[in-house]
Amino acid sequence: MRYPSGVNKTFNKEIKYSNRGMNLEDDINSTNEYYLVNNIACIYKKPTPVNIVKVDYPNRQNAKIIEAYFKTPSTTDYNGIYKGRYIDFEAKETATLNFPLNNIHDHQIKHLNLIYKMGGIGFIIVYFKKVNEIYLLEIQQFNEYVSSHTNKSIPIEYFKTNGKKIEYKYNPRIDYLKILDTLYFKGGKNEEED
Amino acid sequence: MRYPSGVNKTFNKEIKYSNRGMNLEDDINSTNEYYLVNNIACIYKKPTPVNIVKVDYPNRQNAKIIEAYFKTPSTTDYNGIYKGRYIDFEAKETATLNFPLNNIHDHQIKHLNLIYKMGGIGFIIVYFKKVNEIYLLEIQQFNEYVSSHTNKSIPIEYFKTNGKKIEYKYNPRIDYLKILDTLYFKGGKNEEED
Repeated sequence: MRYPSGVNKTFNKEIKYSNRGMNLEDDINSTNEYYLVNNIACIYKKPTPVNIVKVDYPNRQNAKIIEAYFKTPSTTDYNGIYKGRYIDFEAKETATLNFPLNNIHDHQIKHLNLIYKMGGIGFIIVYFKKVNEIYLLEIQQFNEYVSSHTNKSIPIEYFKTNGKKIEYKYNPRIDYLKILDTLYFKGGKNEEED
Repeated sequence: MRYPSGVNKTFNKEIKYSNRGMNLEDDINSTNEYYLVNNIACIYKKPTPVNIVKVDYPNRQNAKIIEAYFKTPSTTDYNGIYKGRYIDFEAKETATLNFPLNNIHDHQIKHLNLIYKMGGIGFIIVYFKKVNEIYLLEIQQFNEYVSSHTNKSIPIEYFKTNGKKIEYKYNPRIDYLKILDTLYFKGGKNEEED
C-alpha cells in the first residue's frame, strides 16, 4: 500500500498505541490473517462504511475522494466461515469493568440474533482494558443478561461466569476459534450445544 | 428517508436507468433487502474499501473525510447466510456476449475457491446487458472452464450450459436463492450435490 510521502503508518501506530496496551482491532485482524494463511478459517473485517460524495480524478489511475462521510454500519464488523459454519461477531473495548450496552448499536444486536436464528454463530468479543482481559460472549448469553436485568451495562463478572476468557498469545494473538471449538465443535465434529 | 424538497428519488431513478436497462447492484441490494425483511436470508454487500487519510471535524457530530483513496477489495462484494450455509459471491456486468476473465480479480477467485473448500457456497452472477440475461455460475464451474480453456473470456454459451439463468422478476428482482435451492437444497433439506 502507498501512503503520502512523509507518512510512515507503522511508526505512527507504534507511537499511538504503545501506552495503552494491545490494540484489539489490529490483533483480531492479525489473528484472522493467521487463520487465513493456515487454512483454518476465512474471516474478514468489513470495510468502514463511507458515503462518498465527491471524487477528484487528477488522472485515470488515481481517484482521490475529497468529500465523504461516515455511515452507521448496518451489520457487525466481522464475518466469515469456520468449519463450514457462518461466523459473525463484533469486537469492543471498554475502559471500565462494565461493558456499556450503548457500545453496541441496536441493529448490530438484531443482526447477531438473526444470524443465530438462521443457524450461524454470533457473539461479541469484549476487551476490558483495565484488567487486560478479553472475553467472548455468545449472543444467546448477551440476550439472557439484557432480558433479566435493567442495567445499562454488563459487569465483567457476567462475562467471567457466562462467557469464555480468551488468553492473549503471541500467535495467533486472540485465538477466539479455540473457544468456538469448545462450544460448537467438541471432539472435532460440528455439533450444536442447545 | 428524507430528501431535499422537490426531489422525488423514485422519479429520478426512473429517468436515470430507463435507457440502460436494470442496474445490477441496485437490484441485488433490493433482492437482499427482500430476503432480509422476509426472514429468508441475511446477505449484505460489503462497503467499498477506502483508505482514509484526512478527516476534518467541523464539530463533534459531523466528521468530514477530505482525503481518501479507493483500495483493492480483498474479498468479494457479497456474503451472508442462507439456510445455515455460508454464501459468498461477486456480481458483474458485461456489455458483450463474453465475460472477460479480467473482470474479476485473481484474489477474488482465490477467495471463492477457499470458501468452497471450507464448505461454503461460492459463485458469480453475471449480467449480459446486450441480451438482458443474468446467469449464476458456481465457482466449481468457473474453475472447470478456466482450467480447460486458454481464452481470456467465458462465452455466454458456457453460462447457458453450465450455469443457471436467473429470471428477472418484479420482487425479488434477482431471485438467486431460488437457484441455490435447486442446486443445494433439493426437497427442502440442506444437501450437497457433489
